[in-house]
Amino acid sequence: MAQATVTGYDPRTFEPLTFHDAARRFRSGDDTPRDYLERCLATIEEREPVVQAFAHLNRDAARAAADASTARWAAGEPRSPIDGMPVGIKDLLETQDMPTEYGCEAFRGNFPRRDNAAVWALRQAGAVILGKTVTAELGGAHPGPTTNPFDPRRSPGGSSSGSAAAVAARMLPAAIGSQVGGSIIRPAGYCGNVALKPTQGGINRGERQATSMSTHGVHAGCIEDMWQVAIEIASRAGGDRGWPGLDGPSTTPEPRRPERLIVLETQGWPGLDDASKEGFAAVLEQLSELGVQLLRQRDHPLVESLEAAIGEASEVCNAITGWENRWATRNLVDQHPDGVSERAKAVLARAEAMSVDDYRAALLARQVAQEAHAALAGAADAIITLSCPGPAHVWLGDEPGKPLAARPTGDPVFNFPSSMLFAPAVGMPLLSVGGMPVGVQVFGRPHQDAEMTAIARWLLGAVSPVLVD
Amino acid sequence: MAQATVTGYDPRTFEPLTFHDAARRFRSGDDTPRDYLERCLATIEEREPVVQAFAHLNRDAARAAADASTARWAAGEPRSPIDGMPVGIKDLLETQDMPTEYGCEAFRGNFPRRDNAAVWALRQAGAVILGKTVTAELGGAHPGPTTNPFDPRRSPGGSSSGSAAAVAARMLPAAIGSQVGGSIIRPAGYCGNVALKPTQGGINRGERQATSMSTHGVHAGCIEDMWQVAIEIASRAGGDRGWPGLDGPSTTPEPRRPERLIVLETQGWPGLDDASKEGFAAVLEQLSELGVQLLRQRDHPLVESLEAAIGEASEVCNAITGWENRWATRNLVDQHPDGVSERAKAVLARAEAMSVDDYRAALLARQVAQEAHAALAGAADAIITLSCPGPAHVWLGDEPGKPLAARPTGDPVFNFPSSMLFAPAVGMPLLSVGGMPVGVQVFGRPHQDAEMTAIARWLLGAVSPVLVD
Repeated sequence: MAQATVTGYDPRTFEPLTFHDAARRFRSGDDTPRDYLERCLATIEEREPVVQAFAHLNRDAARAAADASTARWAAGEPRSPIDGMPVGIKDLLETQDMPTEYGCEAFRGNFPRRDNAAVWALRQAGAVILGKTVTAELGGAHPGPTTNPFDPRRSPGGSSSGSAAAVAARMLPAAIGSQVGGSIIRPAGYCGNVALKPTQGGINRGERQATSMSTHGVHAGCIEDMWQVAIEIASRAGGDRGWPGLDGPSTTPEPRRPERLIVLETQGWPGLDDASKEGFAAVLEQLSELGVQLLRQRDHPLVESLEAAIGEASEVCNAITGWENRWATRNLVDQHPDGVSERAKAVLARAEAMSVDDYRAALLARQVAQEAHAALAGAADAIITLSCPGPAHVWLGDEPGKPLAARPTGDPVFNFPSSMLFAPAVGMPLLSVGGMPVGVQVFGRPHQDAEMTAIARWLLGAVSPVLVD
Repeated sequence: MAQATVTGYDPRTFEPLTFHDAARRFRSGDDTPRDYLERCLATIEEREPVVQAFAHLNRDAARAAADASTARWAAGEPRSPIDGMPVGIKDLLETQDMPTEYGCEAFRGNFPRRDNAAVWALRQAGAVILGKTVTAELGGAHPGPTTNPFDPRRSPGGSSSGSAAAVAARMLPAAIGSQVGGSIIRPAGYCGNVALKPTQGGINRGERQATSMSTHGVHAGCIEDMWQVAIEIASRAGGDRGWPGLDGPSTTPEPRRPERLIVLETQGWPGLDDASKEGFAAVLEQLSELGVQLLRQRDHPLVESLEAAIGEASEVCNAITGWENRWATRNLVDQHPDGVSERAKAVLARAEAMSVDDYRAALLARQVAQEAHAALAGAADAIITLSCPGPAHVWLGDEPGKPLAARPTGDPVFNFPSSMLFAPAVGMPLLSVGGMPVGVQVFGRPHQDAEMTAIARWLLGAVSPVLVD
């Protein structure tokens, strides 16, 4: 395994911004939520001109909220362990005090003055809503201005681009993202975040119901903050309508060593660069040495069945999502012909060429994959795979006169499986390739969010981060 | 069984407005969609001042659409069997060319210029979108101005008040409604309509995703038009995101005599008036005479289990719906403190007193009921019960200084079961009590929409309408 000097990102030395460990100092008065916020604002001041993680900031409201939190901590009465935590909200979620523009020209200036259920819950828990983070247009593939904090020529991933980048740049300890295909776990993988994409329906999407595979989730600097933010939201606002929602311990689950892990290659494996393959192999090698049994396609016929069932995950997920967004996008394009990107219009054109039965067939393929996943319940504790197809690529914008780049925020090919399986996924910064983060994820069966967090917590403690040149 | 002179409504003589039988005359040129529309407009002219079924009418757009349809029929190229059918759209669904006000003061003038997926599909099928029909506020219990076409002192039911009344007043052959608790089948029962509340997820709700028990459905003068409208929508726009959607024959299923029917009393039985009990008994007596075996609670332990599982359907459904609407209503009340009724605010207050675990318990109760229903699959072809708790009551408005009337649009107590079971329900005008319609419904297991339509079609043909004084 080649090891090299890392210029951009070294998981051995990178110190993420964390919040859970500040509580003791808030209690003693050595630190306050207001001071914590001011440090975030100073970092934003310094880094935002290049990173461009935010669509909007509300410094005044954040300072007022941080002062109120400071008073609660001083009185010994914080509302929750995340009281005073500065949090960023992906600009697909409505906030009372900031516009919601969906990264889309057609929504420029849109300011509905409503709080999404998850935002409401965060405020109830005392969190400080500092800003709206950049989203790829409408949560799709057309990128916003955000750059990767470890190399400004590279993409931060998407569509939760700003949430991932703000956390990676230490501007915020946590930010809310959302995933339909790979919009939480992939940018987390490109940016070195810890991240949770909950079980489908795990966190109340409130008025934004989006597609049947969409979930809200959390980017954070550490797993403690990740879990705490998620459970504080879910214990107040629950899951999506019709779903029980994320449940589990009120503080981060203890680390748990898995007995067996299924190594999934997914549709993305053939296109993966050698260095990332090498790095992932080195992570797996450590797991073997730590006594974790690894099951692959060749070891177990049911793993082979699952790989087969997710063999066209990209096509299935794109069909489902395209169809489900079809009417909303059509209305938007009709109303604002110049307010929607050519990329989004191309997705719409493909969706409008589908029949109801095409959609039904895609739903069936998703259901078959879920059955194949469920059949593996006894075989292993979790599935492990990469969070993204290697390190983030260089992205300097579309070139005039040339066809639009297919995937400017990267390919969700490693993320479609957990999305279509409705599976809880936790992304971890265990790997650096060519000086850039490459995430590793574990995912489990629906409602195993706490178990996946426990396993990820163990991995983060037990595995030495791997560097590949 | 007492029989009496009926002043308001006599199902033996009432002639509903139908459309399916106009096609032959459209083809021959003896009639045209434009003339059909003009007859509807004349009826509206005559009856709307009292019935008040419409929130908006767009006569010009309807006439233009009817002319285009007339040209298609003349050319022998109608887009579908409902090409040229004037249809009303409940004012919860967005339409490009009319405001969408949700029956709510806070939305007065709201005009988003979008077509709901179902409206889009109707236009694709050639239907003439004539108007927006009155909904109880936000689809809840606070009534609009609509009166019952058979007695203006009485409620038309709700929340699909205008859709039910417009069809009953022969202003339209069909109208789109929606149901969370009992908002399609109950007003259809009070107004003598045929109606379909599809399997949960059956018809694409588009951008309005509302609650986990909400469905769009159809009010019509006859079962042929009911089915045709539903299938034309579903074959173009499919079901809700994540659901396969209504499927079945492209024209109305043939009548089918059921072998066995389960007679469900539901939570509403003890409060039902004697005349309605007597009338329903007379319907059941006819079924027995026609060789249909009837199963009741006392005949089958699994029917008893189902009755027990839906024994608190009202409480369960109100908890689920209240919680799921909680954040949307809170945002609305915060933005428009005077734009929302006291009734809706009282519902919000109850929802805001719930915990996540209260909601989860209600979801679990719903799931248990669904299991109890599924266990009956082999026992009978369908369930039969009333559509509403007797005839519509007199409703002249809240009395100043007195507490708000609990249920001004009637009690969904006979409708909560099919809603919480995600069951397809078809309402039929088989009964008149005191000169007012009282509907009877059949409902089946999820995705048996076509079977329920076939059974209802048989019942409509085989059972002689029953009149009770």
